[in-house]
Amino acid sequence: MLIDSRVASGLRDLTPSLAKPRERILDRFRQTFRGFGFQPIETPHIERKDVLTGKGAGSEEVLRQIFDVVNTGGTLGELALRFDHTVPLARFVSAHVNEIGLPFKRFAIGSVFRGERPAKGRFREFTQCDFDIVGSESIVADAEIVLVIHQALSFAEVPRATIWLNHRGLLEALLDVIGAADRGPAVLRALDKLTKAGRDVVLSELTNPEKGAGLAEIQALKVLEFVEQGKGGLGVLDRAEAVLGDRESARAALSQLRTVRLLLDESGVSEDAVQFDLGLARGLDYYTGIVMETTVNGWEKFGSISSGGRYDNLAGLFSARRIPGVGASIGLDRLIALLDEMGQLQKAAAHTGVLVGQFPGVPLEFPFRIASRLRGRGVQAECYPDPIPIGKQMAYGASRGYRFGLILGPDELDQGVFHLRDLTNRQETKGLSLAEVDEIVVRVLSEDPQGDAAAKAALKSRS
Amino acid sequence: MLIDSRVASGLRDLTPSLAKPRERILDRFRQTFRGFGFQPIETPHIERKDVLTGKGAGSEEVLRQIFDVVNTGGTLGELALRFDHTVPLARFVSAHVNEIGLPFKRFAIGSVFRGERPAKGRFREFTQCDFDIVGSESIVADAEIVLVIHQALSFAEVPRATIWLNHRGLLEALLDVIGAADRGPAVLRALDKLTKAGRDVVLSELTNPEKGAGLAEIQALKVLEFVEQGKGGLGVLDRAEAVLGDRESARAALSQLRTVRLLLDESGVSEDAVQFDLGLARGLDYYTGIVMETTVNGWEKFGSISSGGRYDNLAGLFSARRIPGVGASIGLDRLIALLDEMGQLQKAAAHTGVLVGQFPGVPLEFPFRIASRLRGRGVQAECYPDPIPIGKQMAYGASRGYRFGLILGPDELDQGVFHLRDLTNRQETKGLSLAEVDEIVVRVLSEDPQGDAAAKAALKSRS
Repeated sequence: MLIDSRVASGLRDLTPSLAKPRERILDRFRQTFRGFGFQPIETPHIERKDVLTGKGAGSEEVLRQIFDVVNTGGTLGELALRFDHTVPLARFVSAHVNEIGLPFKRFAIGSVFRGERPAKGRFREFTQCDFDIVGSESIVADAEIVLVIHQALSFAEVPRATIWLNHRGLLEALLDVIGAADRGPAVLRALDKLTKAGRDVVLSELTNPEKGAGLAEIQALKVLEFVEQGKGGLGVLDRAEAVLGDRESARAALSQLRTVRLLLDESGVSEDAVQFDLGLARGLDYYTGIVMETTVNGWEKFGSISSGGRYDNLAGLFSARRIPGVGASIGLDRLIALLDEMGQLQKAAAHTGVLVGQFPGVPLEFPFRIASRLRGRGVQAECYPDPIPIGKQMAYGASRGYRFGLILGPDELDQGVFHLRDLTNRQETKGLSLAEVDEIVVRVLSEDPQGDAAAKAALKSRS
Repeated sequence: MLIDSRVASGLRDLTPSLAKPRERILDRFRQTFRGFGFQPIETPHIERKDVLTGKGAGSEEVLRQIFDVVNTGGTLGELALRFDHTVPLARFVSAHVNEIGLPFKRFAIGSVFRGERPAKGRFREFTQCDFDIVGSESIVADAEIVLVIHQALSFAEVPRATIWLNHRGLLEALLDVIGAADRGPAVLRALDKLTKAGRDVVLSELTNPEKGAGLAEIQALKVLEFVEQGKGGLGVLDRAEAVLGDRESARAALSQLRTVRLLLDESGVSEDAVQFDLGLARGLDYYTGIVMETTVNGWEKFGSISSGGRYDNLAGLFSARRIPGVGASIGLDRLIALLDEMGQLQKAAAHTGVLVGQFPGVPLEFPFRIASRLRGRGVQAECYPDPIPIGKQMAYGASRGYRFGLILGPDELDQGVFHLRDLTNRQETKGLSLAEVDEIVVRVLSEDPQGDAAAKAALKSRS
């Protein structure tokens, strides 16, 4: 009996049409992270369950979604699959702090797992790209994290992204102003729903004494007024200052946000690309300073594709040593889904390389050698394995994204000439020598405006 | 109470000292695979358990080592973690054959999981790099897989590897010669132990009628003689031909092995790099043609770092359609462990980039802007976050692998000059303009003989 070949519920296979652009984007993320001196680390997909379920490690919802891992052949203790990269980072830093030293800048890219109810665009395994600067309280680190998000998304050709900044200290000061300083966590949880659930839901949650923050209506309205007027450029910070006065938490927060903006100016990041949103809450309790989210202009409803913030005690579950830090995460699957919906995903797939055709009567070693020779010049090249009709071979080449097909039949072999077909427009140049083939292929591919810059540079340097 | 920060038993964290060379090697593997037209695919880490435990999917030993996956919050059916990339490939091809088309060349890089007993160098999660050509019976595909192993390892600077080839048809013919044609699987299992367990153990297993192949001693000795004289270049095939005569299975196998060798000659692969080993068994039942393993010269005891072969029915568990193919897998963790033991791992870590120091009294935006400017020229650059003593900042830079430290104090800021320190030899060049800094940094890094070729090409093309 045959076994069902479908993937398990809530999971998915990635065929090359998605896996190729993912790889290109991840390559560019890695290059960006490295450019700032972030170093890769890897932690196992499987963690001890007590690590993942420690106090504050994840919300109740996330803990319900944990996948346990069991090996029936042995007793390995209670294990589970990681649900993010932050808890493993905290454990990692505690375990290896003497080896790695502080400050420590790391990135981690890999799958995390949550047993969510399957829904469109929601999967139980997804890829997070995290980068953190651990062991420094300097605002330089905060600014650098924002700059990394900006550069990584730009380099990955994500169009028109806006990074939104807020600071926990501003809400703290606001609650002090309205006399509700002890309601911070509940207010944050309510505000976190503003974009998705709307004003009425948030107002009702802010005032609900049992399930919500229990504010008086007038307090709740002040909170809403504060955040609703709080989206935009530096003027937002001036307006906040007018409301919050010279409370210490507000002064420090505003100074930090202004310094970040100044440092980004120095790096050529436009005002539009990084703005302020005083309603930005980030549900998670462990943030203590700047918090950030990222949306694509015109696609705000899609939600954030990268978020993060500053925390003052990363590894409190594992160590008495207080280790502050700041970091962010790019949700690769959400980003890819968004680019796909925007029609941006396929655009960038340049045609490249050469498919070398195979003819009956032409000894195998000829096409094989020619493909090797092209690869030696930095050109992707593949020798079609079977001598099927040449039109079918060329159709395969076009479907695989090759730019050129190289045709060498028995007659051409006698004369020592080749036909080169451009698979994007079916134009054929006949009677070329091998040196002429090399020259045309390298020139066209290295000048292709859609081609990958690094690949083109390598092509030029090898030829 | 604090939680233990150690990783779970049999698993491990990778700090940058291992994760960085791993990334460099994986980058080169990916570049190699792409160069031959292999496309990436991804399958989930979690598969349905019936997929993983289908008949022939894995050996009994592997099935005992499967990790089950359970979500206590929901009923998702029986799930487990993949133990290789081959079973998921078979499921993937069956599920997506109409979308992907044949022939299909894919690579897959990722973690697989086996609940093995922890031992030195053996982990329960490890990374396999698989590449397969599915849907062709052409010997061109077999030769290409061998060439990919050779090129990938060369490009990753693995020294002196030898790829060993054998063909199932030769053993089949030998068993026919000695009148034991029905003992194939048991003989393969016995021969598979030759390197590790030695001749006596294999002889006893070949002759054992209950647990072994049950050959007569004279038959067993002929098998051993055949394989023991069967290691080396093309002469090995001539000797095999003399023993096996003109049996069809032997003729076809020898012709295929000779053609592979011819095609590799055409690609400039030396005789030493690909040889024959008639004792090479590969325990797995599903191989039907050429089989291969790879050792590093002088480190044969370490075992194979890449192995594979041809199969004639990849997806028989899932589909009535017969899909042949050929492929191989590089075991990244075994390769890294070997390179580490050989002392090859650290060697290649070139010093690169610039650490920009921070001084009290120098406004934050200066070092931040200079680091941005250097990154814009393709140079890795990081602005140290805190104004600690400059000697400590430079020590951090050296420990992180930076080539240069850039020093700008309040006096220098007034004069508009910089000091550039080479962190590999502590030599300092003083009083430079920013343009001079750029020029020196780009020139030194792009000419560094230890530097990464692609990074150097990018550096030159941007400057």
